[in-house]
Amino acid sequence: MKIIRVNMGRLELTWEPVPPEYERFGGRALIANILLTEVPPRCEPLGRHNKLIFAPGLLGGANVTTAGRLSIGAKSPLTGGTKEANAGGTAGDALGRLDIKAVVIEDQPKDSQLYTLLIRAGSAELVPAGDLRGLGTYATSQKLQEQYGSRCTVLSIGPAGTYLLSGASIAGTGEGDQRSNQAARGGLGAVMGSKGLKAVVIDRTGAKPRSFADPELLRTAARRFAETLVNDPKVGPKGGSHLYGTASITGAVNEMGSLPTRNFSNGSFEGAANLRGEHMREVILARNGQIGTRCMPGCVIACRNVYVDEAGAPIVGTLQYETIALLGSNLGFGNLDDVARLNYLCNDLGLDTIEAGAALGVAIEAGLAKFGDLDSVAALLRQVGEGTVLGKVIGCGAVTTGRVLGIRRVPAALGQAMPGYDPRSLKGNGVTYATSPQGADHTAGNAFGARKEVNPLGIEGQRALSLKLQIIGAMLDSTGLCLFARPPVLADPQLLVDLINGVFGWGWTKEDVDRFNRDVLRTELEFNRRAGITAADYRIPEYMCEEALPPHGVTFDVPDAELDSVFNAL
Amino acid sequence: MKIIRVNMGRLELTWEPVPPEYERFGGRALIANILLTEVPPRCEPLGRHNKLIFAPGLLGGANVTTAGRLSIGAKSPLTGGTKEANAGGTAGDALGRLDIKAVVIEDQPKDSQLYTLLIRAGSAELVPAGDLRGLGTYATSQKLQEQYGSRCTVLSIGPAGTYLLSGASIAGTGEGDQRSNQAARGGLGAVMGSKGLKAVVIDRTGAKPRSFADPELLRTAARRFAETLVNDPKVGPKGGSHLYGTASITGAVNEMGSLPTRNFSNGSFEGAANLRGEHMREVILARNGQIGTRCMPGCVIACRNVYVDEAGAPIVGTLQYETIALLGSNLGFGNLDDVARLNYLCNDLGLDTIEAGAALGVAIEAGLAKFGDLDSVAALLRQVGEGTVLGKVIGCGAVTTGRVLGIRRVPAALGQAMPGYDPRSLKGNGVTYATSPQGADHTAGNAFGARKEVNPLGIEGQRALSLKLQIIGAMLDSTGLCLFARPPVLADPQLLVDLINGVFGWGWTKEDVDRFNRDVLRTELEFNRRAGITAADYRIPEYMCEEALPPHGVTFDVPDAELDSVFNAL
Repeated sequence: MKIIRVNMGRLELTWEPVPPEYERFGGRALIANILLTEVPPRCEPLGRHNKLIFAPGLLGGANVTTAGRLSIGAKSPLTGGTKEANAGGTAGDALGRLDIKAVVIEDQPKDSQLYTLLIRAGSAELVPAGDLRGLGTYATSQKLQEQYGSRCTVLSIGPAGTYLLSGASIAGTGEGDQRSNQAARGGLGAVMGSKGLKAVVIDRTGAKPRSFADPELLRTAARRFAETLVNDPKVGPKGGSHLYGTASITGAVNEMGSLPTRNFSNGSFEGAANLRGEHMREVILARNGQIGTRCMPGCVIACRNVYVDEAGAPIVGTLQYETIALLGSNLGFGNLDDVARLNYLCNDLGLDTIEAGAALGVAIEAGLAKFGDLDSVAALLRQVGEGTVLGKVIGCGAVTTGRVLGIRRVPAALGQAMPGYDPRSLKGNGVTYATSPQGADHTAGNAFGARKEVNPLGIEGQRALSLKLQIIGAMLDSTGLCLFARPPVLADPQLLVDLINGVFGWGWTKEDVDRFNRDVLRTELEFNRRAGITAADYRIPEYMCEEALPPHGVTFDVPDAELDSVFNAL
Repeated sequence: MKIIRVNMGRLELTWEPVPPEYERFGGRALIANILLTEVPPRCEPLGRHNKLIFAPGLLGGANVTTAGRLSIGAKSPLTGGTKEANAGGTAGDALGRLDIKAVVIEDQPKDSQLYTLLIRAGSAELVPAGDLRGLGTYATSQKLQEQYGSRCTVLSIGPAGTYLLSGASIAGTGEGDQRSNQAARGGLGAVMGSKGLKAVVIDRTGAKPRSFADPELLRTAARRFAETLVNDPKVGPKGGSHLYGTASITGAVNEMGSLPTRNFSNGSFEGAANLRGEHMREVILARNGQIGTRCMPGCVIACRNVYVDEAGAPIVGTLQYETIALLGSNLGFGNLDDVARLNYLCNDLGLDTIEAGAALGVAIEAGLAKFGDLDSVAALLRQVGEGTVLGKVIGCGAVTTGRVLGIRRVPAALGQAMPGYDPRSLKGNGVTYATSPQGADHTAGNAFGARKEVNPLGIEGQRALSLKLQIIGAMLDSTGLCLFARPPVLADPQLLVDLINGVFGWGWTKEDVDRFNRDVLRTELEFNRRAGITAADYRIPEYMCEEALPPHGVTFDVPDAELDSVFNAL
């Protein structure tokens, strides 16, 4: 495999063989290691010493179902620490098939020119992208797919990234005409903007078939993996993940009193019924929208949807749980049409829906709009694209919005907005938000699925649970596997070992995989330590430790000593 | 002496005897110790666990010339660390005479009520201040002096503090009708705002004469101190400090290439001649303004001025060097009238001129106004008072302004804007900016005065120089002495020992004083450490280490290892 290095200062591209020290990494693990090895931990996230890394997981491009997620990483302008955000779509698979282990964007242009990076089988070049300036991510990817072919993958930033806003995401295209697979978290879109990179086009036409170390082992393991997934009661064709997508959990999160409501002032939302995945499915089917679509080829889960308006015209796809929580209940919306419209705006602006939803909640608390009022909230969001100062404040995320507007109730950890689970009533997530090297994140170690094993309102067991889930998260994010693909690999750890050995022939054991996963966290924590992040930063906001959350009347009361010792057993 | 504790949550006041552990501290030293002992280092600066502390220095109210400065402190919303800012005026003397060692403001109101704290001999109370809401600091102090007597001292915040902006200052009245002695740095005005405190009125009428441990020793030492000052060639009546005030250094800073010019893009300003103290004096005298006025009674230096317009009407007083640099050359103004008008606006808004000047420089670089254009710059500044989002961004200081507007060239260290000396060409100040527990600061250890001892462009000797100056700064800020009062106490260390022993009878030696000074820094560094501030935070911005500053073409190149070891010899 190769690494493509793109120097945006000199506008030079280099193909290099993968150095031995990076050979056994992929996705998040590779990003963590490149950051620790090559990026000065104290550098300015939007300066020339930061690097933006695109890396498929270890299993990307190896014909393993659900394993085509693309990891994108850099030092985060939001958390100041290491950052990896991954997304579905076709990019991870395409890079893997092109035998590309990573694309590393370095330095930055001296002027304000914008470029598109064009990657084809065996070649890559930078082309000027002045004609794309100002375009949203939908128009950008449409235009580039018209130009380079509809089978190309396009990764792009919108106005939020160009304005260098720390809530900016990177949008990727997926199967069919999908244009909204967002590597959303941590402000990576701003890093891409700071590199003068408007888009990356990946054309896998003409890719030579990859050779695998043990094709038979790989094929057998991949088939077993897919079969297990298909037969899984939750993710299979009759399971909630397929039927309702990530929104299948809305009802349960609301019932446990953890659904962010009106800027995290309640864990239960009176309008939650209409935000449930079951309701979403009914609405979409009644309007002739789509359910059960895929973001990447060959996915056997097919959790996506295309949410349409009453006339059947698409508003956004896919509508997902975190967005429903942060742009929905958190802003007082009990109507999926409203959520979908705000979702579309965020996607087009290239803005993380979680960060934007949290920032808007803070802005509403400051009196700049009204909870549940689409006109006033959408007007705020549109300002991000208009480049007004208020728009830029919101685009910089919840913490900056709170600072400027004088609001203390800011739901964030390590500078990054919390996803759709109030940590007061799902304390395992609170432990993860506080301690993850990634900041508050829904995929870094989400305890929702373990709510029946560990009492979400109690303190006991949360530390060990969070660590266990953070290790699993590191594994998924480094192999390119989807979070929904957990059941088979947890039930049978040898399966993942076989998949990796089938591709690479490293002769790994289960112990090797476990060490690999843990090393991801160790590497990330070390980068953060060198970046000046300390125990004092790995915390939940003060107000959540003091303000009781309805309906359970609970605060976040996991002692600091528990937080400080999460990684003792790493 | 007593400590007054004011609980703004319960609206209760308590007079308590000074606990033994605080007895031997004053000013900055007392603040550092109260913060470390009582304030959770990780608390939210604008939350209820922070405390706002008013503390005269050890020599406040003891009839020692220039020793009446008031220290104000809290955990800073700007740096996230310990903070002390001090100012002249009559407050330090008044509290000292009332035998009050400190006033500690705790907790915060549950509603948005505003209060005035009224301190009289032996009594104190909170009175509603709804009638002062929205008033600038000039009108606030005028109104309160009309109400409580013109001899009262008034400390107040303006709109910036009420909006909780992290660049907000606290204004204090001084001798005569002075209304603009600003404890400017670190956003303490926002902390005061977060406590619901609009103003503090100190009426020293009826104060019983204080008894001193050794009145004769005190009297002798105080006289010797005053005489030495009067005879000092720099600060005496014929010295530059008296004739030109702090502005006496403008020419020299410009000539050494360290005068912040157009957002720190040059160290030399073509319009510097008209910003020099010598020119300022000529203008003021020609227009029948005032030169050589005092901020506090009995000051033998009398460095202040009243800057007047062409018709002789006061614009602002006192016009000072740091303001001239940050609101002048840094914004492209070579006209003191323009600087004075911006200065007045900042004072009235209750906004640090250094932080505001740096933030405006960043905003101008982002294209929101023009260098040297009073209309556009003043319009930006007025927005702070109007409470627009852009105004709030600027009021939050340079770092927030840079973050929102996507500007990387932000002259700040530890979150706080740099004063009027570019660290690239006065590297000793760079070492202080980077390593001081107070963040970038002009009084924490200013190497300008030592430019003939240590080459300001070189690396050698800067570390030791900064430490020496930081220790002296801690001494001045803890005793209530003015920075201009350094010469006598440096020439004869026994003098300060005699002054302290005269007041308290502690039998201190020079070694005790030295240990006391060093302990201030140790205590502050420890608070910051617990607050999560690490070596990675004690740094100069990346661009200053890479972008050569004209006219000398120098970067800030003091190695990190030098910065990290400044306090090894503490």
